[in-house]
Formats: sequence, C-alpha cells, structure tokens
Amino acid sequence: MSDEVGRAFVPGHITGFFSIHEADDPERAGSRGAGLTLSEGVTVTVEPAAETSIELNGEFAAVESGRRVLDELDETARISAETTLPLGSGFGVSGAVALGTAYAANDVFGDGRSENELVTLAHKAEVAAGTGLGDVVAQARGGIPIRLEPGGPEHNRLDGVPTRATVEYLSLGELSTAEVLSGSTNRLSRAGVDALVALVNQPTLQTFMAESNAFAERTGLLTDEVRAVIDDVHAAGGYASMAMLGETVFALDTGLSDAGYDARACKTHHAGATVLE
Amino acid sequence: MSDEVGRAFVPGHITGFFSIHEADDPERAGSRGAGLTLSEGVTVTVEPAAETSIELNGEFAAVESGRRVLDELDETARISAETTLPLGSGFGVSGAVALGTAYAANDVFGDGRSENELVTLAHKAEVAAGTGLGDVVAQARGGIPIRLEPGGPEHNRLDGVPTRATVEYLSLGELSTAEVLSGSTNRLSRAGVDALVALVNQPTLQTFMAESNAFAERTGLLTDEVRAVIDDVHAAGGYASMAMLGETVFALDTGLSDAGYDARACKTHHAGATVLE
Repeated sequence: MSDEVGRAFVPGHITGFFSIHEADDPERAGSRGAGLTLSEGVTVTVEPAAETSIELNGEFAAVESGRRVLDELDETARISAETTLPLGSGFGVSGAVALGTAYAANDVFGDGRSENELVTLAHKAEVAAGTGLGDVVAQARGGIPIRLEPGGPEHNRLDGVPTRATVEYLSLGELSTAEVLSGSTNRLSRAGVDALVALVNQPTLQTFMAESNAFAERTGLLTDEVRAVIDDVHAAGGYASMAMLGETVFALDTGLSDAGYDARACKTHHAGATVLE
Repeated sequence: MSDEVGRAFVPGHITGFFSIHEADDPERAGSRGAGLTLSEGVTVTVEPAAETSIELNGEFAAVESGRRVLDELDETARISAETTLPLGSGFGVSGAVALGTAYAANDVFGDGRSENELVTLAHKAEVAAGTGLGDVVAQARGGIPIRLEPGGPEHNRLDGVPTRATVEYLSLGELSTAEVLSGSTNRLSRAGVDALVALVNQPTLQTFMAESNAFAERTGLLTDEVRAVIDDVHAAGGYASMAMLGETVFALDTGLSDAGYDARACKTHHAGATVLE
C-alpha cells in the first residue's frame, strides 16, 4: 500500500448466458447466469486529484460506472485503467473499472470499507450506468461463477464450477450492452433461466458451454459472422460460444486456433478482484 | 484435468478471533470470526483406490475430516496431502485436507458437484470431526475473510478486508482444537463477538490485529511463551497475535524477524481453494 496511489486488478468476465432481473433498488437489480472470469483483466490506478478524470489505456474515457463509484465515495481522483482486453466486446471492462476504482480508492483514501461494501458500490454504479448487470459480482468472486440470485452481495447468491480452463477468444466488433438491454428481453430471460437450471443440475464446464450455445441460439443474439466462427470451431471438434454481450467468440482450450483462427489465449482466473501492492 | 488423479490447492488459514455457534445440523454449526488465508497451504492429490488411505507429507495420517468427505461422496481413494505448514498449530491443515479432498475427488471421479456443494461437504466433515468450525469456508474464499454468520455456504455470510499483507509466523508447539472446544466456551464466544463487531465497524488490517490481541487476552488462551514473543514483536514496533488455535505467533510484515526471531514468511492468498491442472 502506497500513500500516493491505490491500485487494484480485476479479472475480465465473459458471460455465457443470463436472465435480467429489474428492481427499483439497483442493489437488488441485476442478472442471474454464468460465465468465466479471465486471467486477462483491468488494472486500475487511483490517484487523489482536485478533479475526477478517467483514462482507459492512456486515453480520456467516459466510463460512467467508474465516475459514479468515486462520486458515491465522495472523493475526486485521477483514474487510470489499463487492459489488454478488447473494449465493448463482452469482457466486463466497465464492471472492472467500477470495481477496480472502488478497491483502489478505498486503499488510497483509507476509507476502511469492507469488500462487500465496495462490491455493492461498484454493482450499483454499473447497474445505474446501464453497462452491465452481473459482471461486478462475478469479477469480485473469480473462477467460473454461477449467479444463482441477482443483485449485490447483501442480496445475491453465488456458486461456482470447480475447475479451470484455458480460454481463447476472437472479437469481431462491438455490441452495445445498453442497446440490447433496452429492447424486449422476455425471451432472453426465459432462455437464461432455462440454461441456469440445467447448469445447476450438472455444474460442469461441458454443461456451461452447451447451455451458452443454446442461449445464444434461442435469444437470436447470434450474428451471422459469430455463428460462422462458432460452427468452424465445432466442426474442428472444439467448444465455442458467444460472449454476452459482445460480437466475440470464446472457445475452450485451443478451439479457435484449431479451427484456423488467429485468437488470443488466456486462462480462467481463480481469485476475485484484489488490491495490488 | 487428468483421468488418473485429481489435485487441489487449499490455502492455510490463521484465525485471529472467533465465536462458537453450535447446532444439531453440522451444516448450520460453525464459528464467526476473522482470519488470514495464506499463500502457504496444502496440496491434496486423490487417486482412486480399492480402499481409502490418507497420507500427510508422506506418512500415514488419520485425518478424519478427509476420510469423512470421501465416505460422504461414497468413493474410495488414496489421499496424499503435502504441506510446508506446521501441523496442529492453528493453520487449518485439517480443514484444508477436507476441502482439498472434496475438490480433487470431484475432479477425478467426475461427480459434477458445484463449489458450494463441495464446501458444504468439507465443512460438515470438519465440524463432525471436531477439528475446526470456520476454516473450511474461509479457505474456500481466500483473502482476509470475515465470517459474519456461521455454517456452510447455504447458511453463512462472509465478507473480507480488501487488502494484502506479508505474514510471518513462529510455531512453538501444538494445541488441540478439540480439547479447547470441549471446554467452557462462553467467555471465548463473548470475546469473539465483541471483536467481530469492532472489525465490522472498521474492516482494516489494523483493527483485525488489535482485536485479535484483545481476544487472545480476554479468553485466557495466551500461554506465557506465546505472550513473551508477542510482547517482543510489539516492543520492536510490530504487530503480532496468536493463531487460534495453536501455540503459534503470527505477525504482519517482518514483525517477528525485526524482534530477532527466526520466523517463516508468506503472504495472504487472494484465491480460495482451486483444482489444479
């Protein structure tokens, strides 16, 4: 812990399927579903300053979730976030900026809040910003999180698939979470609950991939381009699905490379968000 | 994941203070309190076998918690646990063997249980064996866990202190958890609840150390030898307390070395129990 800056690392998070749960209180709102947290993530540095500013990979960025966290803490600071993950592509970068800002700010300002309090702050900021519903609580836990009940840590219920995986991914473009979430979501949520029930019955990586595929099909979120890549991975004997919400294909092991794609590789991450020294 | 053996790593856990919560159902029984999970821990290997046997650091060991986990899973296997932590000294080794056995056995036998199910199994085995009340749920979480409510994952409530620490420790001898827990524990539990309330009000490492000290004093668990070492660390400007339950002193940073002791060093561990590849 330095007196000058606070730093935190937050793993990336790919959602395989989800259902939406609205509530007037953002602490109770959120999603149920399951995903993979990733060894690639976001490192957030918070440095006290007279005015709040946010940079993402060295460029000014209006990450509303991060700004809301600082406002809620009643602090002003320079937030710098660095990530190797693609932006706007379903890796939970905005959730990571919110959660990393909460952890790093608590560290540098000595606010003395608990992990649950910080996760709650970041979850509420992310929900209020409309950029995500379940990434923050998944990223606070790490591993392969199953979100059994929605909301912040005082309300939700989490479980996990007890295994590890190597993950490859390929991003074909951006997709606006806020736009999808503002459309009709009844069919989406029904498909998400069906997938969750199946995963709870058999909490394995194989079930997670199969249900993620079924969810992508049933919700009509698959674009032709994403579908073509997934089909290629399946044809090569691998497992792949679409990151929710991004125009991104993720695969287990070397599924994308085996199908001839130039993909990035990482692993599932078995710690949640952490303050860095 | 190999088809031949399953492997898991479980961090060690030093409890600073605790209160005891009895219940007929071992899933609801347990303790509240707080502690540090450690980068040193226990690696458990589970290999299917006609009869169950348990080895700890290469020697036959009657670790009842581990055997109970396998019995509950209705499997037989050779369990081999390896650790650099001192045994019987307050590092949660029996809890780690239980939890590591659950994770590794699930992996090798393909039982398809979730993390919560495995943590529940291990917690119940540990409580039934009388060797611990809160280590397993802390070791499943990692970090610096605060156990707000007792019991397994379906009943408890956890939080954490959002920071990291370097930890030194010195073990002076063994102490039987079962023996202490079988004595009168009213005063102990009152002191544990007082310490927990203080930590919840100000969830920092400083509060954790101060309340661990107060707990050790109030409960009369401090032996003269342990007290002398803690006094030396405090005299040298450091922070130290007693591991519950072991004749072990733990200190932040280089507190023990600074006071002239030949101590072992490790760090807090920011992942819970994990299956190894």
